[in-house]
Amino acid sequence: MNTLVIVSHPNLEKSVVQNFLKASFPVDEDVQWKYLSETMQFDKKAEQAELLKNDRIIFQFPLYWYSAPATLKRWIDEVLDGDFAFSGKSVLEGKELGLVVSTGISEKQFQAGGQEKFTLSEVLRPFEMLANKLKMKYLKPFIISQFEYKTENQKMEVLINYQQYLQLDKFDFLSKIDWFVSQSNERGLDEFTKILGLKKNELENLNWQVRLLRESDGEG
Amino acid sequence: MNTLVIVSHPNLEKSVVQNFLKASFPVDEDVQWKYLSETMQFDKKAEQAELLKNDRIIFQFPLYWYSAPATLKRWIDEVLDGDFAFSGKSVLEGKELGLVVSTGISEKQFQAGGQEKFTLSEVLRPFEMLANKLKMKYLKPFIISQFEYKTENQKMEVLINYQQYLQLDKFDFLSKIDWFVSQSNERGLDEFTKILGLKKNELENLNWQVRLLRESDGEG
Repeated sequence: MNTLVIVSHPNLEKSVVQNFLKASFPVDEDVQWKYLSETMQFDKKAEQAELLKNDRIIFQFPLYWYSAPATLKRWIDEVLDGDFAFSGKSVLEGKELGLVVSTGISEKQFQAGGQEKFTLSEVLRPFEMLANKLKMKYLKPFIISQFEYKTENQKMEVLINYQQYLQLDKFDFLSKIDWFVSQSNERGLDEFTKILGLKKNELENLNWQVRLLRESDGEG
Repeated sequence: MNTLVIVSHPNLEKSVVQNFLKASFPVDEDVQWKYLSETMQFDKKAEQAELLKNDRIIFQFPLYWYSAPATLKRWIDEVLDGDFAFSGKSVLEGKELGLVVSTGISEKQFQAGGQEKFTLSEVLRPFEMLANKLKMKYLKPFIISQFEYKTENQKMEVLINYQQYLQLDKFDFLSKIDWFVSQSNERGLDEFTKILGLKKNELENLNWQVRLLRESDGEG
């Protein structure tokens, strides 16, 4: 499976969360990080060809006024033009669309009775509708809220879930266990601790990870 | 009451609906048409000052991928920065936010069971949330769907409702009647027919208008 992560952030260098995600980005041919800068002119044909080569397309951005930053919207408007997207049928049919969205607002505020009143499912509805229109499979958005307030363990959980969001074919419990085992086998425990940004002694047994997996499986 | 209409459309010259709205734009000091071009650099301070001078701010745009065109989003991201919008309290508190949104898709498709599955209230939620955050009053969006399929009478109804959307303090039945009377008095019936783009004989009695008003009042 090939995954393309399209990153939009008006101030990438200063973003703690984007730098964290970049540093933990899988080193793998099948996952590609693509940054859209504000001044960039997009080569429409090349962008479209790149989409066709990938199975999972991910938009990664901070929530700006309850939507994507303008540059990502410009990319969407220019690249997903009608001639490309609907030449007879949707050319992206069957591919997956994922979102990695960071927000400085607590997720708890996004509900009836919360400050924001509406859920993040509603905020991100335009992306769900875009996926529907293109007959893409809309993945459950990956939300990172108030990253800077997270504990080290919580950040690690973000990192693991992020890597899995990019690379796992399916998000069920068994796929997650397989991912852990294959990561350890492929890279060895030393390398794996490095990827995870952990001290080695923190990884001495897998109990913690399994507990984490079991806990997070309800959300998987 | 002062109204600022901020227009965004990637291909303004070719847009039938935008040309129609521009041609029928009220000639009045209290209503201002402001077009955002794609290549324009925004003077943030000047834009902010302009917002403060107006009571009703309207975003006028075609729905592009279930959202505003990228240029309007750029304007929002740049002009509504945190320092301006929340210097202690919201500087735009109490002002109104309206939307004039055109779409090539029938409004009927925007509902459960329709092709688009979700309502336009949901599609436009990010704007409602923006208004909430700024403590602005969110006006019921003014939707123009499939303009090119409309009959002449339906287009006229769009025109009248559009002018009222820009200029009426309130949208109740009496305010609408007052608007008609004052339009006729101020400009005379000849001028009024011209504004409405009607042949004079079509306006010979007000019965038609009153019927129109009564019909549309449920939506007022």
